[in-house]
Amino acid sequence: MHNKENNDRGTIWPDDTDHSAVHVIDQRKLPFFFETITLRSPDDVYDAISNMTLRGAPLIGVAGAFGMYLATLGINSRTNIREHLKNAAGHLISCRPTAVNLSWAVNRVLDKLLAAPDGISLRELAFETANGIREEEIENCRLIGTHGVRLIEEISRPGNGAPVNILTHCNAGWLACVKYGTATAPIYVAHDRGIPVHVWVDETRPLNQGARLTAWELGRYGVPYTLITDNAGGHLMQNGRVDMVITGGDRATLKGDVANKIGTYLKALAASDNGIPFWCALPSSSIDFNIRDAFREIIIEERGQEEVTSVAGFAEGVVGKVRICPEDAPAANPGFDITPARLITGFITEKGICRAEENDIKQLFSDKT
Amino acid sequence: MHNKENNDRGTIWPDDTDHSAVHVIDQRKLPFFFETITLRSPDDVYDAISNMTLRGAPLIGVAGAFGMYLATLGINSRTNIREHLKNAAGHLISCRPTAVNLSWAVNRVLDKLLAAPDGISLRELAFETANGIREEEIENCRLIGTHGVRLIEEISRPGNGAPVNILTHCNAGWLACVKYGTATAPIYVAHDRGIPVHVWVDETRPLNQGARLTAWELGRYGVPYTLITDNAGGHLMQNGRVDMVITGGDRATLKGDVANKIGTYLKALAASDNGIPFWCALPSSSIDFNIRDAFREIIIEERGQEEVTSVAGFAEGVVGKVRICPEDAPAANPGFDITPARLITGFITEKGICRAEENDIKQLFSDKT
Repeated sequence: MHNKENNDRGTIWPDDTDHSAVHVIDQRKLPFFFETITLRSPDDVYDAISNMTLRGAPLIGVAGAFGMYLATLGINSRTNIREHLKNAAGHLISCRPTAVNLSWAVNRVLDKLLAAPDGISLRELAFETANGIREEEIENCRLIGTHGVRLIEEISRPGNGAPVNILTHCNAGWLACVKYGTATAPIYVAHDRGIPVHVWVDETRPLNQGARLTAWELGRYGVPYTLITDNAGGHLMQNGRVDMVITGGDRATLKGDVANKIGTYLKALAASDNGIPFWCALPSSSIDFNIRDAFREIIIEERGQEEVTSVAGFAEGVVGKVRICPEDAPAANPGFDITPARLITGFITEKGICRAEENDIKQLFSDKT
Repeated sequence: MHNKENNDRGTIWPDDTDHSAVHVIDQRKLPFFFETITLRSPDDVYDAISNMTLRGAPLIGVAGAFGMYLATLGINSRTNIREHLKNAAGHLISCRPTAVNLSWAVNRVLDKLLAAPDGISLRELAFETANGIREEEIENCRLIGTHGVRLIEEISRPGNGAPVNILTHCNAGWLACVKYGTATAPIYVAHDRGIPVHVWVDETRPLNQGARLTAWELGRYGVPYTLITDNAGGHLMQNGRVDMVITGGDRATLKGDVANKIGTYLKALAASDNGIPFWCALPSSSIDFNIRDAFREIIIEERGQEEVTSVAGFAEGVVGKVRICPEDAPAANPGFDITPARLITGFITEKGICRAEENDIKQLFSDKT
């Protein structure tokens, strides 16, 4: 899977030669150009996450972990190590507030380092921990695929040849993770197994992660898809053209509410109104086992107006932006919304499938709650 | 109201000198350039409606009526008049299938012409009829404003100073009509009366009529507004930041279902889920008194993929397009969706306000049913 050019190492990988840097795909340029960027410090990681060079809840978690590793490279004989590491962690976590993966992964590395016995190489420990998180998240996504494919298989129509029509919002593909993706993982497995699937890809304004990234991913993998505006999904559902919805999730609560890319809630409403199953595919690193009330406890990131007032795209050989409104138009840009558990059929996780409901979540993740 | 530059004559007006042409604002260029286009034949009208030089249910109705007037200018001594007029009408009506205004207005002029006694000037009769429809629609919109303002007034908080937050989708402003607008008419009246209002403007992909047209209209009129992506409205409603929704409507049925710009249904679902009133403002010319089942009887226009795969906007002094997805990305582009009556609080019409319900509609429009 994903063994096509440049995908072997996924979205993020440590430098082969001396581990002095981490490389990532520059997702701002996709699908127009495939470029990678080298990150050498926690500040580089911070900038790359802030400016959307990399994004996606699982990926920003892994990147944050590597940010902590890069922080250890900055330790010298005069460094107050605890302060240095805590500052780096605080800065990295402050970068994006909504997805829980970032704080989860950064704190996991930080805790390891702070608890390290004297004489242990912090650099090696940080690298192992960050790389371990990377490997874990790859495995989690792989497992989400093998668990989730059952749901697709169940509603496929063998012999009929008609595809299972799956709607997805934003990009919860391998570009949002390291490999396989969350929402896309079951889709790729289904495709590999010869189950006909077709994906409705929400363009996902303002940054068009659907149009740019999900469309690119699916197209390269040979999965049939159709790009639609964010406005179109409800109409397609009303007309029997969507069999299921699968999205990712930036932060799920113990009660089963999910913060995800702005607009997810609207699709969940439409799915519910039309009796269509709505699944969130997410690894346990996206579940915040400490909170129940998503509406009170999750900070929804408000992003820049410029993302709304303009659209980036490709024209005449370059990637540029066009302004789509009057010059002085004020805009608001909430980055996420919360889909209440009552609208979610269930979660597809590395441990299996469960309802978006406290008891089910606790049972599946009894080791974490 | 609307006595600022170029607005006196609204969106469409006959040539002052000899009535040999009709002028319209070129809405494809707004808000970047204000330009008008001259239409001299039914084909010109057909093209202008097809390519979105003008759009909006009431306006395409008025334009269709003038298209029939322009058809009479093509009559000469060798013309088979009935055939000529019927062909022109059929061609004009075929242009856009969803809004009922187009067929309503074209047929109204056609019926007048076909029933005209010998010796009557068809040209004069067509002009009077088309111009009469134009005047009626202006008056209808004015009345929608005076009826609808009550709804805004009722939920305003006098003395508090906080604005009534109104969300609207697409452009149901004066640009969609001749003057005043449908959804915007009550907003303009409220603003004129000193009731503080603030409008959340959905950008309305794919053609961004919200970002381009509604934002421009409201800004010029001094009504405070904030541009948002189509994804954001549900989140704002969940957080108490929307007091009411007002949209237009391209075709309402006797049962109270409404076909309107794609994405309207999603906002109606969110309004319903959050207990927020959802109003459709429309003149009776947008009500199809002949149909009940919107899902079976209304044709939803499927428009070109290019509108989805690219976005038009302004950059470096020119209006251009950027492609937002892989080059070969397939796209679907349904232009409208249907909001079922159960999600609609009611209609704001020229006759007053009614529930989206057959008995109420019949009572209000007892002359038409």
